[in-house]
Amino acid sequence: MQLLDGKKAGQAIREEIRLQVAQRLSEGKKQPHLAAILIGHNGASATYVGAKVKACEEAGILSTLLHYESDLPEHTLLEKIESLNNDPDIDGILVQLPLPKHIRESAVIHAIEPSKDVDGFHPVNQGLLMQGQPGFIPATPYGIQLLLQHYQIETAGKEAVVIGRSNIVGRPMSVLLSQPGPVGNCTVTLCHSKTTDLAGHIRRADIVVAALGQPDFVQANMIKPGAVVIDVGITRVENPTKKSGFELKGDVDYTNVSPLCNWITPVPGGVGPMTIAALLKNTLQACQQKDT
Amino acid sequence: MQLLDGKKAGQAIREEIRLQVAQRLSEGKKQPHLAAILIGHNGASATYVGAKVKACEEAGILSTLLHYESDLPEHTLLEKIESLNNDPDIDGILVQLPLPKHIRESAVIHAIEPSKDVDGFHPVNQGLLMQGQPGFIPATPYGIQLLLQHYQIETAGKEAVVIGRSNIVGRPMSVLLSQPGPVGNCTVTLCHSKTTDLAGHIRRADIVVAALGQPDFVQANMIKPGAVVIDVGITRVENPTKKSGFELKGDVDYTNVSPLCNWITPVPGGVGPMTIAALLKNTLQACQQKDT
Repeated sequence: MQLLDGKKAGQAIREEIRLQVAQRLSEGKKQPHLAAILIGHNGASATYVGAKVKACEEAGILSTLLHYESDLPEHTLLEKIESLNNDPDIDGILVQLPLPKHIRESAVIHAIEPSKDVDGFHPVNQGLLMQGQPGFIPATPYGIQLLLQHYQIETAGKEAVVIGRSNIVGRPMSVLLSQPGPVGNCTVTLCHSKTTDLAGHIRRADIVVAALGQPDFVQANMIKPGAVVIDVGITRVENPTKKSGFELKGDVDYTNVSPLCNWITPVPGGVGPMTIAALLKNTLQACQQKDT
Repeated sequence: MQLLDGKKAGQAIREEIRLQVAQRLSEGKKQPHLAAILIGHNGASATYVGAKVKACEEAGILSTLLHYESDLPEHTLLEKIESLNNDPDIDGILVQLPLPKHIRESAVIHAIEPSKDVDGFHPVNQGLLMQGQPGFIPATPYGIQLLLQHYQIETAGKEAVVIGRSNIVGRPMSVLLSQPGPVGNCTVTLCHSKTTDLAGHIRRADIVVAALGQPDFVQANMIKPGAVVIDVGITRVENPTKKSGFELKGDVDYTNVSPLCNWITPVPGGVGPMTIAALLKNTLQACQQKDT
């Protein structure tokens, strides 16, 4: 068993980005600039945004964190996004989800100018992804693509099973894996809550991407020996023996599954760090698109 | 074996549309109006566009056919599309594919205003489809959805295999079948030219959608008894015993496969007529969206 080490791969990609940004600056080109919007005081959201801002800083990407109280009216948020759309210094805009209930997520996503939509959630970017055209790929599936690429995992002609059909992970992941090109050409089966023989599908898979959000769901008896297993899940589970009172659990029963795999991502330290690297890549790309 | 009769189902849907249009007119609402652009003298393209225009007429939908020579410069076509975008009387715009080589298909598709893109090829509409949001669904997968709906085929929890990953048929079809909601909730496997065990996948499928364009590719020994088989293929094959010198062949070996199926589409008279019904539905929807 070998580790798909997202911490290491992510670090390597972030270092590449840092060098590319430094090169830009030495050529007198514009410094990339990400605007991140955080609303309210959700602890996990604050942690994620904080990690993104810190990663930008380390890579030489400017970042502006806009933090609002959770009673922010929707129209005020939309106006703010509009002003960021029109601000030529801002290359990428990210609105940390989830949003307070009174704000419509789709209205916010649709408001972001597609050329600055570094989260890749706008329908235009999702459509470009579906058509195999250049655009912004959502950070989690893009990060997984980068991870497979980093470790030169062969994907062409392989059987892949993606568990979970969310718009931001499972579905775009299934599209990416089945497209022509590198890190593609898999035969992909997209499984979800209505799938009748989930274990049967997983058992046939050379590549498993688990993104259902149920700790330890994927068990050793579901895994084909030699499989590549990508664990997107990250759930806080109470554990009184830990100092923090909880531990982070993936969707895969790592202890029992990992001995059977050729490759597997740990949780934490697998997909998580790759999503940040992917976001930085998107932000740099957004900035590069303006070069002429 | 029962027939998924696209001619019959399509006729029923077109009759519904005709009544809805008549109702609109009696209420003093705008009559739907489709603009169809045909370039050059490809026989099949001319036949398809002709059938669409005729179907519009029968349903009470206005249609304008713009026919250009094959040396039409790209920029002239784009200007024409722009003027149709800005014409308030035009509800839907369709550019018949394939285009002459000197015209970039993606430039043309991107030029059509998404709210008039009744073919559903614009990235915005593909993205909305991927996100399960309302938009225009490409006519062929939409027509298949309407056909399954018409015959009340149960899809939830079924294993579906889609063969072919094109942007206008296979991929959107795979997304539609796997989405939540009616005519959805299938576990979908998207197969293509790089799939290693295609026959194995087809053999496990409760629903097979064949869209690869290879006559008689799907054979009886690949079919699970009781399957629902949708044949999107339509290829002209030489046949000297026919008056025309050719016959139309689907991707499925109908003679040997049909006895095994619960439901199957004939070729012709299956998916073909449904795509026209789907186009009319999209055109009516484009017109309705403007009502306020």
